[in-house]
Amino acid sequence: MKNKLLLTLLAIIFIGVTNMANAQEQTYSEVFNKVNSPADVKKLSVEEMNVLSSDIRKAILNKVDTIGGHLGPDLGIVEATIAMHYVFNSPKDKFIFDVSHQIYPHKILTGRKDAFVNPLAHPEISGYSNPHESEHDNFILGHTSTSLSLATGMAKARDLKGEKYNVVALIGDGSLSGGEALEGLSNAAVLNSNMIIVVNDNVMSIAPVEGGIYNSLKVLRDTNGQAKDNIFKSMGYDYYYLEEGNDVEKLIALFEKVKDTNKPTVVHIHTLKGKGYEPAETDKETYHWQMPKFIENYGKKQPAVETYTSIANDYLVEKAKKDKALMVVSPATPGATGLTPDVRAKLGKHYTDVQIAEQHAVGYISGLAYNGAKPVLEVLSSFIQRSYDQMSQDMAINNAPATILVFWGGISPADVTHLQVFDIPLISNIPNIVYLAPTNKEEYLAMLDWSVDQNKYPVVIRVPMTNLVSTGVKDKTDYSDLNKFKFANKGEKVAIIGVGNFYQLGEQVQAKLKEQGINATLINPVYLTGLDEKALDELKANHDLVITLEDGVLDGGYGEKVARYYGNSGMKVLNFGAKKEFTDRTPMDELNKRYHLTPELIIKDVEEALK
Amino acid sequence: MKNKLLLTLLAIIFIGVTNMANAQEQTYSEVFNKVNSPADVKKLSVEEMNVLSSDIRKAILNKVDTIGGHLGPDLGIVEATIAMHYVFNSPKDKFIFDVSHQIYPHKILTGRKDAFVNPLAHPEISGYSNPHESEHDNFILGHTSTSLSLATGMAKARDLKGEKYNVVALIGDGSLSGGEALEGLSNAAVLNSNMIIVVNDNVMSIAPVEGGIYNSLKVLRDTNGQAKDNIFKSMGYDYYYLEEGNDVEKLIALFEKVKDTNKPTVVHIHTLKGKGYEPAETDKETYHWQMPKFIENYGKKQPAVETYTSIANDYLVEKAKKDKALMVVSPATPGATGLTPDVRAKLGKHYTDVQIAEQHAVGYISGLAYNGAKPVLEVLSSFIQRSYDQMSQDMAINNAPATILVFWGGISPADVTHLQVFDIPLISNIPNIVYLAPTNKEEYLAMLDWSVDQNKYPVVIRVPMTNLVSTGVKDKTDYSDLNKFKFANKGEKVAIIGVGNFYQLGEQVQAKLKEQGINATLINPVYLTGLDEKALDELKANHDLVITLEDGVLDGGYGEKVARYYGNSGMKVLNFGAKKEFTDRTPMDELNKRYHLTPELIIKDVEEALK
Repeated sequence: MKNKLLLTLLAIIFIGVTNMANAQEQTYSEVFNKVNSPADVKKLSVEEMNVLSSDIRKAILNKVDTIGGHLGPDLGIVEATIAMHYVFNSPKDKFIFDVSHQIYPHKILTGRKDAFVNPLAHPEISGYSNPHESEHDNFILGHTSTSLSLATGMAKARDLKGEKYNVVALIGDGSLSGGEALEGLSNAAVLNSNMIIVVNDNVMSIAPVEGGIYNSLKVLRDTNGQAKDNIFKSMGYDYYYLEEGNDVEKLIALFEKVKDTNKPTVVHIHTLKGKGYEPAETDKETYHWQMPKFIENYGKKQPAVETYTSIANDYLVEKAKKDKALMVVSPATPGATGLTPDVRAKLGKHYTDVQIAEQHAVGYISGLAYNGAKPVLEVLSSFIQRSYDQMSQDMAINNAPATILVFWGGISPADVTHLQVFDIPLISNIPNIVYLAPTNKEEYLAMLDWSVDQNKYPVVIRVPMTNLVSTGVKDKTDYSDLNKFKFANKGEKVAIIGVGNFYQLGEQVQAKLKEQGINATLINPVYLTGLDEKALDELKANHDLVITLEDGVLDGGYGEKVARYYGNSGMKVLNFGAKKEFTDRTPMDELNKRYHLTPELIIKDVEEALK
Repeated sequence: MKNKLLLTLLAIIFIGVTNMANAQEQTYSEVFNKVNSPADVKKLSVEEMNVLSSDIRKAILNKVDTIGGHLGPDLGIVEATIAMHYVFNSPKDKFIFDVSHQIYPHKILTGRKDAFVNPLAHPEISGYSNPHESEHDNFILGHTSTSLSLATGMAKARDLKGEKYNVVALIGDGSLSGGEALEGLSNAAVLNSNMIIVVNDNVMSIAPVEGGIYNSLKVLRDTNGQAKDNIFKSMGYDYYYLEEGNDVEKLIALFEKVKDTNKPTVVHIHTLKGKGYEPAETDKETYHWQMPKFIENYGKKQPAVETYTSIANDYLVEKAKKDKALMVVSPATPGATGLTPDVRAKLGKHYTDVQIAEQHAVGYISGLAYNGAKPVLEVLSSFIQRSYDQMSQDMAINNAPATILVFWGGISPADVTHLQVFDIPLISNIPNIVYLAPTNKEEYLAMLDWSVDQNKYPVVIRVPMTNLVSTGVKDKTDYSDLNKFKFANKGEKVAIIGVGNFYQLGEQVQAKLKEQGINATLINPVYLTGLDEKALDELKANHDLVITLEDGVLDGGYGEKVARYYGNSGMKVLNFGAKKEFTDRTPMDELNKRYHLTPELIIKDVEEALK
């Protein structure tokens, strides 16, 4: 059902698990082979640690080239991770990695080396911090910018209990601009006891960094930490700078200096993202993460494939040429939504990356729309979770006619921290917002075109995560006529409401029912934020059962609204979708079975309900 | 239904509209009487502006003493508001007030004076920014820390359209620590065109400020803006400091200097919260907002009344004496949840105010709980909206056994920006969280006691917003036995599920049905996050109708889950609760009527359904 290309991208960024290519046989040094725990690191000489660094990079490249995953951030943080384990005593001292996709070197040093060198073991560990894997990991982490709050809490718990150890938060690769991180930075400053914040300044998030926070890091880099205006000192932190953030010896010396401090302390290190793999050092954005076989494929042009990602951006590039008020906004994930450097260059001043700052992103587009511009925010389902209050307060209450494109919404085999099944409950229950679920290319473009130019509603569009399906017929729907169902077939007995991604599943169910002699009604509900009550009432005349199919969690979602609507009638309702649970890299087959999301299992339930 | 005291508090903070006391007749100067628009301000001499300041304070005191409202923040910002209108040209130049409860002087100067001097007109305007009232207000605003994002968007829209004017965001009274504000501060720094941020530094939020951000303001205050480490300059801002933030002449000179700048600029002014009313200058926290007749009641001790607010804190104070791991956390709203200075003093190191930083607050308690402490976060329903992602990622995925007390959840006549009806959909659809809805004092305390000491679940408790009802019977429920209904009566035909605040409404409906000869079943569902499926199945035997009553929005809420559960059965279900809509100071009577939330209207619907 899911589009393969999208799923591969998804797997790479969010999961790091795809089909296994043939890994190259690698040989590793004796030093590398004998390091299986932090205790082993502590026995090494600087020279040996440099050998170790080199082999850790080899192992990371090996794994990512085989099953895909984050690359540049991990290559850059190798020496700092070794130095942390050399100086501090994990797990007594607590490490928190933020964003936690910088954790590969730490995993290699804490007993999980096999998952990097042995292709068969690659999928066994996640790409993120995970205490279920090791006592050296603190917190299941995936979203960025959480470390300082979590670390402040850990440190305060330590103090309340009268314990003594270091709490070390490593934050970087773009995480520092997130609101939670800045709130945490402010609050941690008055902790009045040990907390060490290692700011990993690699001058990048996924794309290059920009903004006041990053300017404050730049002036410090430019002056070897001596700048007149030091943001950290202004807040009350002890502050140390290290220009050579990939020099293990200097890192050790610095960490030794701050170890066991009784003051909140910032250690600002300048590292090289992608270090040790020349293409990744040069093109930091492309090599932030990579697909399998990227080494072999280096320099080869990938065939351009039309996706739901590319068609929106093609439209927006054209729109920007004609409309000076258009503004495309990304919260630091341009690559994941098709905003390639090429597209960004074409958009010019009509594009901005506000960095990891999803709250601001929604406030910003609300301000743009309120003042007559035409903003389009491109964001992933998992990360829009940061913006509930801004969608409600800044955007919806003000009826700011901004557009949000939510990408990748749907059931997936993603990591627990990157599930995308919660956006329908999150967004569709906010008043005033129009949340649309297109089912094909023409609908998607027609909705986008309508949304960008209208000035009455805050609009969110759930970008399809299915195969490209074009009706071939121009979509002339007037989307300002809210909450009108589209009927693909008017039948009887059973009505199928196939929402967005799952419309095609609805078609399959309809076809199967036809084989059984049931001419089922098939409905594309179009709107996630309101029901076509007239149409639902009309179904009562000759239908016994309505089924809803949605690609998301059922609790708080679309189907429940249909069930509520029919609660006081004789109409039976069956809702299909995901259970309210955190899944973690669970294969799609298993999820489809668990949630009854195959045509066969749905038919079975329908038969049961019709008995 | 609603507790009067709580409702009064609510009215004061969130609405500013209660019953009207008899206002004192006030006389105002000729200057004050002739100012009806910004154009009038521009004609005044400094001397006249000082007279005007004094009368604006008189008008604010007059209004607040009559119907209640925010006081200290408005008294402190009088001169700055006059100076803004003197120098800039609203509405061409755009003003954004943050938090927008600092907007009273602006309202007085922009044609809404009558609502301050004429008691009959007091309720006509809201206590917050509202473009429906005046073209001089930008955005409907109520939650804090949004101004910089909104202003950045407005400024960018201006630039895209090739327009020229000033965008001025006034941020202060605690707003600067919020994550959205800090994200916005970072992004605005690279706007590369006009944006003026007036930091109103009154050294307070509701309670005193603390933290790194506020330390950075302190070092600037202490050095008359000359500190070596300047957070704003480090980010790239032009920066100006004014110690005399209540001196209209100096304010004018400074605003003249920055007007029409083509760079993002920070104007940091040091003002006196509560200025001009001595008790408010002295006790800034108490006079942040006030109840009607506070002038007359000055110095009189209010009778201590037991409320759901006080009983939790009494419990926590006792708990802290015995358990060193307890930690009570407030995100800058201690007064609203009963964390008075007295309670805070008793809690000592077991209490912290993390400031306006709701995301951090949830990350922080997750870190505390993960590391073995016992944190309890006290937060208002409206503001927990900021923390969805942190509740999901930091707390729920990690199963961090923290406790959140959500206050004031329920349907109310609040301002649109301070509605409290969305917390059930927001929280109850997150996996792993146990969301509890107590219906009386014993349950509430038993739940709190269970939650604080258990270490398996993230727990949220929706603090009742009804009259105190004690069963007089010790509650011995084991709340770790999740999702078990409590049956108050096992009857037939109709089952009433009365959720939390609305349990008593359920009792009333039950009584009315009894009069009609129906022995209805009455259920306290206890848990908002899961159904007692066994009990629901058993109801099928001798019930035709289940009604759910919940004090919140229906969409995504509790009742829909019951409707979904019964979708495939013959059981009829009626869900009672609020419609998905933004209401704005709508009287309770009207809402109860609109939503059918009186026993009479519910009975009518029940009769209809049973036909």
